[in-house]
Amino acid sequence: MILLDGKTNAQKILNDLKSKIAKLSAPLQLDIILVGDNPASVQYVSMKQKKAQLIGVKTNLHQLPSNSPTKEIINLIRQLNVDNNVTGILVQLPLPSSLDTTLILNTIDSSKDADGLTAANLGLLFQKNPLAIPSATPFGIIKLLETYQIDLVGKNVVIIGRSPYIGLPLTALFLQKNSTVTVCHSYTQNLKTICQSADILVSAVGRPNFITSEHIKEGCIVIDVGLSPDPQTGKLVGDVNFETVAPRCSYLTPVPGGVGPMTIASLLENTVNISRNKEKAQNPLI
Amino acid sequence: MILLDGKTNAQKILNDLKSKIAKLSAPLQLDIILVGDNPASVQYVSMKQKKAQLIGVKTNLHQLPSNSPTKEIINLIRQLNVDNNVTGILVQLPLPSSLDTTLILNTIDSSKDADGLTAANLGLLFQKNPLAIPSATPFGIIKLLETYQIDLVGKNVVIIGRSPYIGLPLTALFLQKNSTVTVCHSYTQNLKTICQSADILVSAVGRPNFITSEHIKEGCIVIDVGLSPDPQTGKLVGDVNFETVAPRCSYLTPVPGGVGPMTIASLLENTVNISRNKEKAQNPLI
Repeated sequence: MILLDGKTNAQKILNDLKSKIAKLSAPLQLDIILVGDNPASVQYVSMKQKKAQLIGVKTNLHQLPSNSPTKEIINLIRQLNVDNNVTGILVQLPLPSSLDTTLILNTIDSSKDADGLTAANLGLLFQKNPLAIPSATPFGIIKLLETYQIDLVGKNVVIIGRSPYIGLPLTALFLQKNSTVTVCHSYTQNLKTICQSADILVSAVGRPNFITSEHIKEGCIVIDVGLSPDPQTGKLVGDVNFETVAPRCSYLTPVPGGVGPMTIASLLENTVNISRNKEKAQNPLI
Repeated sequence: MILLDGKTNAQKILNDLKSKIAKLSAPLQLDIILVGDNPASVQYVSMKQKKAQLIGVKTNLHQLPSNSPTKEIINLIRQLNVDNNVTGILVQLPLPSSLDTTLILNTIDSSKDADGLTAANLGLLFQKNPLAIPSATPFGIIKLLETYQIDLVGKNVVIIGRSPYIGLPLTALFLQKNSTVTVCHSYTQNLKTICQSADILVSAVGRPNFITSEHIKEGCIVIDVGLSPDPQTGKLVGDVNFETVAPRCSYLTPVPGGVGPMTIASLLENTVNISRNKEKAQNPLI
């Protein structure tokens, strides 16, 4: 079993981005909106800022109280949309449940959507449109698989999770790579049997030990996107029961050090691509 | 085996729409853009116009020569986008191969996209956003299944075809109904085995006799979206070899009289919904 090393690969991507950014004439600025003080979100935003700074992307943090109304956040996004200094905009999820997350995300100008979460970019991705900005986590997963030269053509991919942030854009990307894709979720019957047919299994559930050896065909490639606190230790862990699953896999992403670092690298790659698209853009989009 | 009677059900939907339209204050207008003189497209557009007239939707046909440049069609769409008399806009597909179909479709104002084929509406559909205008054919398929009170929750749905017009928006709609969905295509390995796991099999390939009894689990529900000329008779036929498949199915859509009429009914239902959304709309979309 080979560990899919997101940490090292993300660092390589960041190094590449750094040299690309050094050659750009205009500075890059990523505006991050953080609502409330959820500790995991605060930590995640701080990691994103650190990596951005390392490669020469300026970040601008807009920290708002958790009781901010949807309208206020939308107004802020509208200002950022028309601000020429802003390269990319990112809203840190999850937002407090009182807010209309979809409406807020869809307010982001799709050409500045660094995390690739607007409806426009999701639709463009399913259209295989080269102008699509892909959702960062799925983009990172595909890049990690490609780094290891894993052939995706004709592979049976089973994705557990149908969120518009991970499961669905990942479906679009695997279909672009000519994989056959099955999307499973909480209503799926006989999940284990379906998982056993997978050449590549992606779990984006957020429940520790959800994936055990019983889900795994010998030689399966397993991508662990889950991140939730272990009920015993409180430490953030993935969906996969590593001890029993690892021996049956050909490749497996560790948690931490797998998908997580690739997500941040992809966010920053999106930001660099936005500034390039801006130069190329002539066609009106949607 | 029960035939899923699209013809009768489409007529019921059209009757309902007719009474709804009669109560509306503003008239509805569907603008149809037809490029070239492909006989099947010409016939299909004429059917759409006939059904629209029957229920009180005015149609406006813009027939352009097949050598029209992309830019000219885009300019026409831009005019229609801002014309307050235009309720919905439809570009008849396929367009001549010299044209940029995706760019043309994405120029349509997503709130006037009667056929639901813009990237914006595809993305909104995958977001489960109530503002999404669904692609007409997938919308018609789901409505037909619902008419027969077929329970979709937890069902294994296999869709052959990954176009952004049929296979992909249909994936979004089945996922909304809590089905498990597998998307297959020309690179899929062991297609027959995958099809045999389907509770509901949708074929959108466009090749006569592509689906035989070997693809069908006993009791499967089969939706035939194919439409291509029979090599012997030249008549338009579906993907399904009716004689061998029908005895193994619980439900099956005939061709003609299955998905086709439901598509036209859904197009017109979208047009009516557009005029309703216009009244409700306050939130800026994408």
